Amino acid sequence: MSDIELKVVGRVRTSVPRAELKHREGLSEIIVESAFEEALEGVDGFSHLFVLFWLHEVGDEARETLKTHPRGRADMPLVGVFSTRSPHRPNPIGLTRVRLVSRHGPVLTVEGLDAFDGTPVLDIKPCDPWETEEEAQVPDWWLRLEEERDRRKPKA
Amino acid sequence: MSDIELKVVGRVRTSVPRAELKHREGLSEIIVESAFEEALEGVDGFSHLFVLFWLHEVGDEARETLKTHPRGRADMPLVGVFSTRSPHRPNPIGLTRVRLVSRHGPVLTVEGLDAFDGTPVLDIKPCDPWETEEEAQVPDWWLRLEEERDRRKPKA
Repeated sequence: MSDIELKVVGRVRTSVPRAELKHREGLSEIIVESAFEEALEGVDGFSHLFVLFWLHEVGDEARETLKTHPRGRADMPLVGVFSTRSPHRPNPIGLTRVRLVSRHGPVLTVEGLDAFDGTPVLDIKPCDPWETEEEAQVPDWWLRLEEERDRRKPKA
Repeated sequence: MSDIELKVVGRVRTSVPRAELKHREGLSEIIVESAFEEALEGVDGFSHLFVLFWLHEVGDEARETLKTHPRGRADMPLVGVFSTRSPHRPNPIGLTRVRLVSRHGPVLTVEGLDAFDGTPVLDIKPCDPWETEEEAQVPDWWLRLEEERDRRKPKA
């Protein structure tokens, strides 16, 4: 597949500290390249978008990872990378569902994007509620991580 | 980004006719390459997965498309490709949330994958219910397409 060339359609701009990005709580911007701005027309009709981005800091060696402890935690089971969202995977493409806050020309302000400042964006897709109408089941270890995350959240 | 090389981690195998695939009702298989089989460990703990695949039949010219009528229908508004799931987009990467029916070694049987037989698979990610707890809003034209799809479905 060396004939596949990916295009960078935009870049992430964020001042959220790296350690906080993983909690998906801050606001980020996606600055779409001017050549692709037209492709955004109508995007503000959607409340949520999927953002695909290239995890450009993941090196070739990390792409060889097949199994991992989720979040690098020894108390989590050793599972295959296709059972995790680890950035260490054969094709380090990030996928995050974000809330679209606003669009101003080529700039999307989004909430919940766990991508570092400067990350190349590969694609933006509308989020379809049909895709999410069935509730998803996950393993116990995943629920345990979720509960810990919820406890970390400030109370409303 | 010509230095990015994507790896094919598997292929789609399906006998569902092409015209029916878009309704996401049939069963397909994902045959994971033996080199990546280990990365599947634990995947059967999830009910739903995101599958990322390369839309290998989309040519370079179609990748130049910036605006389109959803589903090629003249009665739909002309919108940017980032507001649609059209395969004609700068980086023709398909994304579908599927239900995992079973795993046998390197073979995942999944429901709802709208990818043609032989499609190269780029990534498999677990689907997190947290991502889908907020209900997504979509434009009127999208709802109209959904209603038509629901009418097409056989009654239970």
